[in-house]
Amino acid sequence: MKSIIMSWVLGMAFITGISAASAATIPDGMGALPTVVPEPANNPTTSDRVELGKKLYFEPALSRSGHFSCNSCHNLATWGVDNQKFSIGHRWQRGGRNAPTVLNAAFWSRQFWDGRAPMLEDQAKGPPLNPVEMALGSEADAISRLTEAGYEPLFNKAFGKNSLTFDNTAKAIAAFERTLITPNAPFDRFVRGEGDISAAAKRGMQKVADIGCTSCHAGPLFTSNDFVKFDYGKDHGLKSVTGKSDDEHVFRVQSWRNVAMTAPYFHDGSAATLEEAVKTMARVQLDTRLKNNDIADIVAFLKTLTGEMPQITLPVLPRPAGHALPWQE
Amino acid sequence: MKSIIMSWVLGMAFITGISAASAATIPDGMGALPTVVPEPANNPTTSDRVELGKKLYFEPALSRSGHFSCNSCHNLATWGVDNQKFSIGHRWQRGGRNAPTVLNAAFWSRQFWDGRAPMLEDQAKGPPLNPVEMALGSEADAISRLTEAGYEPLFNKAFGKNSLTFDNTAKAIAAFERTLITPNAPFDRFVRGEGDISAAAKRGMQKVADIGCTSCHAGPLFTSNDFVKFDYGKDHGLKSVTGKSDDEHVFRVQSWRNVAMTAPYFHDGSAATLEEAVKTMARVQLDTRLKNNDIADIVAFLKTLTGEMPQITLPVLPRPAGHALPWQE
Repeated sequence: MKSIIMSWVLGMAFITGISAASAATIPDGMGALPTVVPEPANNPTTSDRVELGKKLYFEPALSRSGHFSCNSCHNLATWGVDNQKFSIGHRWQRGGRNAPTVLNAAFWSRQFWDGRAPMLEDQAKGPPLNPVEMALGSEADAISRLTEAGYEPLFNKAFGKNSLTFDNTAKAIAAFERTLITPNAPFDRFVRGEGDISAAAKRGMQKVADIGCTSCHAGPLFTSNDFVKFDYGKDHGLKSVTGKSDDEHVFRVQSWRNVAMTAPYFHDGSAATLEEAVKTMARVQLDTRLKNNDIADIVAFLKTLTGEMPQITLPVLPRPAGHALPWQE
Repeated sequence: MKSIIMSWVLGMAFITGISAASAATIPDGMGALPTVVPEPANNPTTSDRVELGKKLYFEPALSRSGHFSCNSCHNLATWGVDNQKFSIGHRWQRGGRNAPTVLNAAFWSRQFWDGRAPMLEDQAKGPPLNPVEMALGSEADAISRLTEAGYEPLFNKAFGKNSLTFDNTAKAIAAFERTLITPNAPFDRFVRGEGDISAAAKRGMQKVADIGCTSCHAGPLFTSNDFVKFDYGKDHGLKSVTGKSDDEHVFRVQSWRNVAMTAPYFHDGSAATLEEAVKTMARVQLDTRLKNNDIADIVAFLKTLTGEMPQITLPVLPRPAGHALPWQE
């Protein structure tokens, strides 16, 4: 019966000019990237907040040296990452975890590898004050810098009177980040019957389901948004937040969306290639030794998950006319 | 006779609704920013070269660490500068001269404070190989990085077959830089009779001519594009290039275009405010002690020279799918 239906589907596809490939069976749960982006009730994604948030995202005044902005490590010219193992921070210090992409982060259940920030609004407050990253001395330091740079009217427009606060700084950045969605990956077009993917990618699509990868890398986001033990390396993961021994080496499951563009891989950036990452994950998480042709098929599939970058007009940042801001450290 | 004409002009302005201010006398030589940008015969500003050059301008692969791009120090979100005294470079080294703005640099006679690069094409080759700045090991290093990142087709489109060379890298960046022009400053609109500037700015406009500032900061560019001794600080200036004692402390005259947005000032970034810069220049170059109200008027005029930033869409840089580039230094 199944083969009769398939023949009919293939025949119809041929007749209507739809690619025959779109008739391939898409494993349970997989689907196109959602088009509706969640937003919290207390921070609607208004255009004023997005525009302000974009400025703040590119704002080096949020770092002690005046050198780093959010975009330094989560570079929107390179898929929301810096392609570094560990990012360069204040005075050339290195962080201890690989900078994850900001793209589609609006869809994640929690932020950071260990999920210590529930929302984008919480995450955005971290790096400016982290002494290894942007190294500002305090929230007050951020506010005085933004005030001096001339941000007050922009905050007041986006949040109302007297609203230049650190909380609202993070809110505006989060609002901007909710626009950083990458639709129309080849896989998404394939799912919608608008385009084809290669035979290797189709085999890979089936294999990730058969092997069990998609029990964690589940659904249209290719992450269950859950926390799972990844017993690899010395990073304590969630345990470093909760202190619980059960949380040892537990990390949030990363999405496969745009994964081909965000090398190197893992929380420690230790896997330089997607092939290596796939091989290691199958071995450590699924006790499976993949053959080279399986790896190649899976990588071919993962490459179909690269979406379209949002078009971003570089903001012009507010600056006081005629005098320097005090950053020389 | 003059006063009769002025009365008539003012009357006409009133009747026709044109601001009376536009009738103020504009000192000899001053004018609106040119709209025609010079380009060398061997590097036409084609759209393919501009698009490629924009990518290269934002390309951190052109630095040893993978962290710095042209845009790090000549940040197009902040008027083509980084607002630092001396920019941060490889491994947190500091340069020895203030990073000048890239805006309108296409109009300068020569590039760098000491003019050691005749063209933008020459200038663009400097920072990637400067050990204090982007610190690449060699031109070959640049080429292999760009090749690995996936630039070959873009060069071939812009320059023809087998054209991924260091020379063409610089040419493309220069072509992009020739689009970084800032027209329609309040002063330009005023000159064209399209808008007004304040009474203080008009006084300042007259004073810079009367005092003699505009003998060097001449013409619509507000630079003679000439080299002049500025006996201030320990920097040898042009002498460090030519070795000639006559060139001691000689620097290219900087333009006043967008000067209000490019603090701090001078080759050594030692003047934090425009007021201080004006005061020092008048004293050192013209042996004139300016009064505070003169300084205020001149600064008011200089602030009318801030033009409109070109709208820049952030490029998406070519990257190999599924593997990291080798930069961890």
